[in-house]
Order: sequence, then structure tokens, then C-alpha cells
Amino acid sequence: MAVLVQKYGGSSVATTDRIKKVAARVSRSQEEGYQVVVVVSAMQGMTDRLIAMAKEIMPIPTEREMDMLLSTGEQITIALTAMALHAQGVPAVSLTGAQAGILTDGVHTKARILNITPKQIYRFLDAGQVVIVAGFQGRTPEGHITTLGRGGSDLTAIALAAALKAELCQIYTDVDGVYTADPRVAPNARKLDEISYDEMLELAGSGAKVMQLRSVEFAKKFGVVFEVRSSMNDNPGTIVKEEAKSMEDVVVRGVGLDKNQAKVTVEGVPDRPGKAAQIFSALARAAINVDMIVQNVSRAANHPVTDVSFTVDKADLPKALKVMEELKPQIGFESVDANEQIGKLSIVGVGMRGHSGVAARLFEILAREKINIEMISTSEIKVSVVIDRKRADEAARTVHAAFLE
Amino acid sequence: MAVLVQKYGGSSVATTDRIKKVAARVSRSQEEGYQVVVVVSAMQGMTDRLIAMAKEIMPIPTEREMDMLLSTGEQITIALTAMALHAQGVPAVSLTGAQAGILTDGVHTKARILNITPKQIYRFLDAGQVVIVAGFQGRTPEGHITTLGRGGSDLTAIALAAALKAELCQIYTDVDGVYTADPRVAPNARKLDEISYDEMLELAGSGAKVMQLRSVEFAKKFGVVFEVRSSMNDNPGTIVKEEAKSMEDVVVRGVGLDKNQAKVTVEGVPDRPGKAAQIFSALARAAINVDMIVQNVSRAANHPVTDVSFTVDKADLPKALKVMEELKPQIGFESVDANEQIGKLSIVGVGMRGHSGVAARLFEILAREKINIEMISTSEIKVSVVIDRKRADEAARTVHAAFLE
Repeated sequence: MAVLVQKYGGSSVATTDRIKKVAARVSRSQEEGYQVVVVVSAMQGMTDRLIAMAKEIMPIPTEREMDMLLSTGEQITIALTAMALHAQGVPAVSLTGAQAGILTDGVHTKARILNITPKQIYRFLDAGQVVIVAGFQGRTPEGHITTLGRGGSDLTAIALAAALKAELCQIYTDVDGVYTADPRVAPNARKLDEISYDEMLELAGSGAKVMQLRSVEFAKKFGVVFEVRSSMNDNPGTIVKEEAKSMEDVVVRGVGLDKNQAKVTVEGVPDRPGKAAQIFSALARAAINVDMIVQNVSRAANHPVTDVSFTVDKADLPKALKVMEELKPQIGFESVDANEQIGKLSIVGVGMRGHSGVAARLFEILAREKINIEMISTSEIKVSVVIDRKRADEAARTVHAAFLE
Repeated sequence: MAVLVQKYGGSSVATTDRIKKVAARVSRSQEEGYQVVVVVSAMQGMTDRLIAMAKEIMPIPTEREMDMLLSTGEQITIALTAMALHAQGVPAVSLTGAQAGILTDGVHTKARILNITPKQIYRFLDAGQVVIVAGFQGRTPEGHITTLGRGGSDLTAIALAAALKAELCQIYTDVDGVYTADPRVAPNARKLDEISYDEMLELAGSGAKVMQLRSVEFAKKFGVVFEVRSSMNDNPGTIVKEEAKSMEDVVVRGVGLDKNQAKVTVEGVPDRPGKAAQIFSALARAAINVDMIVQNVSRAANHPVTDVSFTVDKADLPKALKVMEELKPQIGFESVDANEQIGKLSIVGVGMRGHSGVAARLFEILAREKINIEMISTSEIKVSVVIDRKRADEAARTVHAAFLE
């Protein structure tokens, strides 16, 4: 019998009434002939309440104990979900991450899955039971409880789907699927029927916050086909899978917009080998994630200095400026300038590989609207530009209309 | 180094502030040179909130899932308590019941401890850490999470003290110790410095609800010396231990009063062998706990019928009356009468063994006050009488004054 993994996020299990609805959906899937494994998150708000209690006790709670604390959130949901299935006459059993055989490393609060031994899961599935697994958690080989960090429940679902060779992994959330653009910005955005892992990764890196990057990367690595869909209706969602030939017919799959970045420009950097390396090594040591990097040409041949620009998450900007300040004597640049008023607009599509001139067309569209491009970066299946934040939404609508309507 | 086990109940860890106070106390005990193992309950109110959610989902939640759900209550407390110790600079680690090696049978919601393998606990103690163990829970040999039922955290503490050969087990609660009577009824009641297991058991069976019977029985069986004391002050509590010779100098250790029982009288039972057995077998099959039993003499030699009276918990009275109604055709008694307006007054003390006339003195005291005795039962170290509920408090005060003031 085929295995189906379903994952329900915090908003889908926010109340006991919603948990009953989840149980009804799970029950229907079982009736369709699947062996169903359900992964659930903590009820919406639960994790925040637990964190608040921990912070009352110590401002930066110790990480092993944080995992011990937070893992109770999902444990509450699995028990209630199993009960809701029992109430509907469906045999079901709940398992913590540890009981489900999810083994992780010992990096508390952001552990990585080492492997999954689904012996218990198979035992219960074979006995005709729905198996409810706590998302976001596992245990170390020594038996400590760990959590997987942000987006951890998605990762649990994808990893279980891989371990169980599931036919499909459904990620139930509060959106209908992956859209060609954020519908709040571009009202003409459409839900996609399918998207490749790589496109999903590039879109996720471009501000589309449907799923964390690492869950998609994990799915890609193990070839797990998954569907992003809503727990509030019965609409089909978006299937995320390996790139197929037919996908290349679409040049641009989606438009991403990220207004959560800031741009740092280091001016008058001596144009000598190793200077850029010094800058980005220092940022890496400070655990600051750098997204786009642009180095301008030297301003004059007899005055060999250059300007280096890069973007970081806004939250990391103060730390990045501090790092640069400390580097100043060592590198000998002239000044540092920061700009939070930017937006990063991206177009993504595997079809770009076979089509030339896509970037040029993007630049033309923006030029026609007199929107200035501050930075450009490209990959094989993506073109990103940094523009003025004030005109970002308008630009996204225009670009969406030109490529996708 | 000597091991000290401390158990803190739900009211002692009701808020993060109280948890900080618990940590301060634990820290002092460690400074005194003990290896400290701390057992905590769920924060006051937490278990009720979890039960309420479960009942929203199904009126009688399935028991395995109830254990999965309720065990999170203690898990939250152990994490917060460990953090509170960390905040005070004390190395500490939390362990769930399963991690602490507490193995139980599979009777969910009221599991019995099979054995304890304290390997992990020793490992952390030897590394200089305070070990915080979740009370009330364990796991089956198959890895299912179980809970121990009412008073389960006390049982965890006593069982760990036995397994770790602890020097002492301290049960912190919201009362100062065991009293000669309930101070709300008898204002002159005194806290006892010490009491024997058997006296504690008889008092607990007589309405003194400091601890559940089975924790005391477990302590007696394994010779665990424990102290009942308050987490709100530094007063010494009451030491509960094996009977010592000196204890017999006190004839009456305490006065118990139980107003939570009802009396059932079965009138006109044919006075033939086996009739009483039929009654009490049927009650036992219905899982009704019978406390006192009195059978009166036959009313006349030529009319061989008798009256049988017994007491049960008030909560069990409707069930008991139903059982009797069903038995009527089979036994052929005349009628059944129930009385909820009773109080059971007991005097308890190991010194009774060496003193005759204690029961007679109790009856005299009550007679002097014109308090009628409806039933009497005695054990080696206890005399109990059933009297009118309306005069029960007054009777307890008078008896306390006569024997203990």
C-alpha cells in the first residue's frame, strides 16, 4: 500500500476544532487507500508562550533545556490529533520524534537529521493505524531531545517521506500553494500547478516564504515529490518536483520580491588582491549571511580603489556595520554607506536556460518605468535586481504583467 | 557523596517566580554537599488545561494518548527548573521519566513502576550536575509514555530515592508537615516531628490527604525515609520512617476525620453462609472500594435475617446502590438504605498496641458529649467510628483535646 505523508502547520492545528477538521481530512485519505503518516506542528501561539516563560527565567535560555521545553508543543498536538482520529473511529497512534526514530546531531535548537529508523512507524502502519509524528524534533544517539529549528516540521515531513518512500508528501499550510508572485503585491498572481525544486529554491531565496530553503533542498536531494496546499479548502495545491523537460516551456515561473534586505557599500577599497576576501571572511566569521555582491570597476587607473556593495538581511545590518568599522584600519577603505530603502526583485524560471535576452528584457521593462537598477545578480535560472523600495511593489506588478499575464 | 531527592508539587512550581525559588533551595542543598535529584510536578493548573483540551476533542479521551498529552506538563516544568538553576550558575540537566530510566507496566493513566535503571542519573550526578526528573511518568519496555496516576510525582520521588539509596527524600508541598489533626477542624493541632509508615497509612486512610497511600506503602516496602515539608518556608517538616521503639510512648499519634464517605445498610439479609460474600464480591467486581463493614447479629433466632452495613466513597454511592439493586433477587434481602450524612473519626497510634482501653476511652468521650456511634471498626493501631456528620468537627476537636492536648 502506498504511503502518504501529510504535514499540518501551526495555524492548521491552532484550536481543537481545527484539529478535528485535520482528523476528518486524514480519515478521508486513509479511506482512499493510503497508509497515512501525519506530521504536526505546535498549536499556533504555543511555542511563543513557552518561549515567553523561558525568558522570564533567563534572558538567553540554555539550548538543551529549550529543546526539552519546546518539544512539548508538538507532543501536545500529536496526542490531541490522535484523540480526534479516535473520536472519528479511526485507529491512530502518536509518536514523539524520538519514538518515530528520528536521529539528529547534538546541535540543540537547530539540529540536523542524521537518519531515520522508521521501525515503529512501519509496525503501526502495518497494523492499520494512522501514525501521528511530532514535527520539529528528534533525539541524539545519546537520547537527548533536540529540535530542528525554523521550518523544522516541514523538514520532518520531507525526511519521513524519503525514509518511507512515500508516494507523495503534502504540506498543508494557510496558503493555497506557490504563486507566480505574492498576491498581496500583484493581484493578478496565479497559483502554480507545479514548480521544480530549483525554481522553488530560488523563489524562496527571493522572499517567497512558503517554505524554508533547507526543506526544499532536502526534498531535492532525496527526490521527494511534495505538494504545498491549504488545510482550509479542498483545492489542489502546487506540486514541487524534479525538473521535467516540459517545464522549460515556461521562461519565467515566478516573480519574487524581498523587501527585507539592506545594502552596504564600502567605498574606496584599495584595488588589490585579497581585499574582498578580507571583507567577506570577516562577515562570515560573524555569521552574517551575505546575499548579493557587486564590485564596481576601479575608478581610475592611477588611483586603484574600488567600491564593493553587498546586501544582508536587515536584522543583520547593525552587526555588519560593526564588522566593517572594525575592519577599516586593516583594509584602509574610505567609508561605509548603508541603505535600508531597497527591494530585491527576482524573476525565476528553468526556461531561462534556453532563452537568451531575458535579463535584457527585464532591464528594459524597468527602464521604461524609469525605475533605477542599483545592483544586478544572475544565476542560470534567476535574474535579481536591487531597486528603490518605494517603487518595488509597482515594479513587481509591471514585471509580473510583462512576463506572466 | 550522599544523594538527596527533593520533590516539588504543582503549587511549588506554579509560576516562573516560584520555580526560581525552588532553584534557590535546590542550590543551597547542593552547597551543603549533597548530590541532588529533583522531582517536579506539572505547574498548577497545567494538567487541568490539558485535560480540558482533550475533553473538547472526545469526552473520554483514549488513555495512551492522554498519557502522551499529560506527560508534557512535567516536561515543561523540568526544562524551566533546569534553566532556573542555570540562571543561578548551578549545572543542571532535565530528564523525562523515560530518560531517567523509569520503567512501568502498560496500564496507561495508572501505570505501576516495574523498575528504575538510574544509569543516566548517576552519570549526570557524577559530573556534578543537579538532575531534574519529570514526576508522574515513565515508559513501558516497548517505549510508550505512561503516567502513574494520582500522587504519581510523590511515587516517582520515593522510587528514585529507593533506587539511588538516597539519604533522605523530601516531599515539598503547601503544608508544613503531618499534623495531629486537620488544623482547619482542630485549631490546637500540632505538627508532628515524626510518624511511622503504618501510622501515616492509617491517617491517610482516615482522610488526611497529605499523600496517596501507595507512595507511603512503597516507601515502607523499600525503607525510604522521607520528610513532608513546605516549600514556602524553612521550617523542618515531618519525618516518616520505620517504627522505632520510642514511638510507642505516644498512644495516639493523630486524629483523622473523613467526611467523604457514605454508609449503605442492607436490611433483612437471610442469615446464611455466603450471603455477605455475594454482596462484597459484587461490589469488588464493580471496582467499588469498601472501607468499613459491620454485620449485626440476627434479629431473632427463629427469623434468621441480619443487617449488613458498609461505607464507600461518596462518589461511588450511586454505583454501589445500583449493584445492590441488581443483587436483590439473588440474595433476597428486604431493603437498602443509604446515608451520606456521616463522618468517620479515627484515632491512630502504634502505642495503642501496648495500651488497653484506648477504644473504650474514645467511646466514653463521645458518650459524654452525647454523640451516637453508628459503626465501629478497629485495627491494631487504629480505632474508627462512624458518627453524625453534623457533629463530626466538634467530635474531632473533643477527641483531639482528650488524647493529644
